[in-house]
Amino acid sequence: MTKIMAVNAGSSSLKFQLLEMPSEKMLAVGLVERVGKEDAIFTIKYGEGQKFHIVTPLHSHKEAVELSLEKLIDLDIIQSFDEIAGVGHRVLHGKELYADSVVIDDEVMKNIESFVELGPLHIPPNLTGIRAFQTILPNVPQVAVFDTAFHQSMPEENFLYSLPYEYYTEHGVRKYGFHGTSHKYVTQRAAELLGRPLEDLRLISCHLGSGASIAAVAGGRSIDTTMGFTPLEGITMGTRSGSLDPALIPFLMQKTGKSAEDVLNVMNKESGVYGLSGISSDLRDIEQAAAEGNHRAEVSLKIFSNRIHGYIGQYAAEMNGVDAIIFTAGVGENSDVIRERILRGLEFMGVYWDPSLNNGARGKELFINYPHSPVKVIIIPTNEELVIARDTVRIANLVESHV
Amino acid sequence: MTKIMAVNAGSSSLKFQLLEMPSEKMLAVGLVERVGKEDAIFTIKYGEGQKFHIVTPLHSHKEAVELSLEKLIDLDIIQSFDEIAGVGHRVLHGKELYADSVVIDDEVMKNIESFVELGPLHIPPNLTGIRAFQTILPNVPQVAVFDTAFHQSMPEENFLYSLPYEYYTEHGVRKYGFHGTSHKYVTQRAAELLGRPLEDLRLISCHLGSGASIAAVAGGRSIDTTMGFTPLEGITMGTRSGSLDPALIPFLMQKTGKSAEDVLNVMNKESGVYGLSGISSDLRDIEQAAAEGNHRAEVSLKIFSNRIHGYIGQYAAEMNGVDAIIFTAGVGENSDVIRERILRGLEFMGVYWDPSLNNGARGKELFINYPHSPVKVIIIPTNEELVIARDTVRIANLVESHV
Repeated sequence: MTKIMAVNAGSSSLKFQLLEMPSEKMLAVGLVERVGKEDAIFTIKYGEGQKFHIVTPLHSHKEAVELSLEKLIDLDIIQSFDEIAGVGHRVLHGKELYADSVVIDDEVMKNIESFVELGPLHIPPNLTGIRAFQTILPNVPQVAVFDTAFHQSMPEENFLYSLPYEYYTEHGVRKYGFHGTSHKYVTQRAAELLGRPLEDLRLISCHLGSGASIAAVAGGRSIDTTMGFTPLEGITMGTRSGSLDPALIPFLMQKTGKSAEDVLNVMNKESGVYGLSGISSDLRDIEQAAAEGNHRAEVSLKIFSNRIHGYIGQYAAEMNGVDAIIFTAGVGENSDVIRERILRGLEFMGVYWDPSLNNGARGKELFINYPHSPVKVIIIPTNEELVIARDTVRIANLVESHV
Repeated sequence: MTKIMAVNAGSSSLKFQLLEMPSEKMLAVGLVERVGKEDAIFTIKYGEGQKFHIVTPLHSHKEAVELSLEKLIDLDIIQSFDEIAGVGHRVLHGKELYADSVVIDDEVMKNIESFVELGPLHIPPNLTGIRAFQTILPNVPQVAVFDTAFHQSMPEENFLYSLPYEYYTEHGVRKYGFHGTSHKYVTQRAAELLGRPLEDLRLISCHLGSGASIAAVAGGRSIDTTMGFTPLEGITMGTRSGSLDPALIPFLMQKTGKSAEDVLNVMNKESGVYGLSGISSDLRDIEQAAAEGNHRAEVSLKIFSNRIHGYIGQYAAEMNGVDAIIFTAGVGENSDVIRERILRGLEFMGVYWDPSLNNGARGKELFINYPHSPVKVIIIPTNEELVIARDTVRIANLVESHV
């Protein structure tokens, strides 16, 4: 058996899963929060519902990685670091260089470093996480799994902005798309659930979390997605505005005295359903307030749902129809209210969903369409860590060498 | 009979039509170019194919209006200014104050003056045109016909951006939409051509000129449109980028050293099919270059057409289907190549168009769908001046008093 660590390093956090491959059994799920603080929090779940929790000073990602690995042994999850055959790292951006995951070497590290300007908040902690594992497990292959890679199959008419062409060739200005590992996982899983070859399917994948994006996936290839050059573009999110009239930036600079960066910061962090409702970025709070009659909460719910509803129509048009619509991530997996608002009024394109199946469905794989519906509607909990582990095994050729 | 002037004043131009109402007979079409120059150009067509043309100094819009009215008498089109019962003026912006046309008085003028920040290029010449006619025809009612008015019926979930709500209440930040007179005209005309009450119809109106926008019109009311706070938003245009990731503005400021205003200027004037192709903002040139094998021209055509194709899907989703798709304005009325690219691959939603009807169809009312197509596809040449004249008669109550 091969054990793989799937790692997602944020600016002050480290998430990881330990998976046994190829059985895909999850051995442990860990989370380190407040990395860099005296009161960092380490939590790990393992075995049959066991859990370990500690608050302790952790001054760096390296210390967080050391503690995580130590605890895997202390808690008898593994006996030796040698059991870890590979580490897969989620990396925000692969630009046009990486259309697939890659084994990390010096050149790959240099390239990822050069992507910092495209992900100033995400890439530095991604790099920190990789370096920490490289230091502690120097002989274990490290694999980078890019959030953008799955969307590299988009045709140029879908990834180019209508800007001077030189902005693309000289500055890399184009639509990249994100949440690629998630869209890849759920569309592959949808094909299995539908019992049909992925190559024959036209799928619309709705990844709806606090960040949210939609992808049109034809024949297993992403052909379009809502996020763009950055994860700001597209649909309304928890705190992000999504797409809007670019002319608003200079207008708001003039009206509010803010810099362009500050206006962008408002669009990223104080907008979305949070800015619209004035209540919360969490759609559960918005749903509750709307149910209690709060008008701005109701409008926020409508806006969030309608934008997605519209993209389903758009992406169906791009593929001349759709075989299945997939809901995933926190909101997509758990909110029957929002799924209903999104799905209402798509009969014209063959979407017939069953309220009795949708109502109360939470966090498990489930078809929620009527049996006769030409378009299927499927809830599929996402599993990005599994894609990372699979890619690590595949890219580093670990099944042959370790099984 | 009532004669009405329909006026469209630009920064250095004055367009007008003289119409006889209610017969809607066009008596004259005039164009003054290079207003403010020593070599201004005055052109008027009238009668049965007659034309008059002169190059002469015109230092102001007032002089352009004086010359225009003078020539109407000189050329025997009218016998006296008294025959002009009303003047209707196209005005870019009515904000939320004007959901319909209005007779212009001092208060209306003050309000329009306050809209300048929302249309710094368009509103000042609009005002100049109104003042010129007020001075020369002081006893004739002047009516303002707003490009935004038709879209005031949009529900708030469609006109609100996902920004802090206060930006809407304090700064009027919302989607306004433009080309309202055109979308209104062609959707009313579509109902006549379909022989069905407008109230029962779901229509998608594609106004495709050098500026371009699409509107979803349900029951005669605009419920959504692609242009937004300004005419920059939405689909790819001749030189405008349409929608894109707002994060690109700060990024491009940093990369190019431009100010936010300058980047916006690029998005308005050096982008769209012009920026993409590097060839022209005129789609006829792009079509020709693409036919000759130019790759960037081909991609530009694809991008222009695909964005519209996608919006047709989106707007159909917003109305749970569509009864007819309308093409209007320069490109929409005249380019079979672009209509074909837009319409290809919409069978999933019931659009079956007939290439033999589409091919070569130019500038005349025509159904181009197969008879059995559930969704009709209609070319309708737009006539904004007629809407202006109709509104002038209706709003100023001119039929009763002058017929």
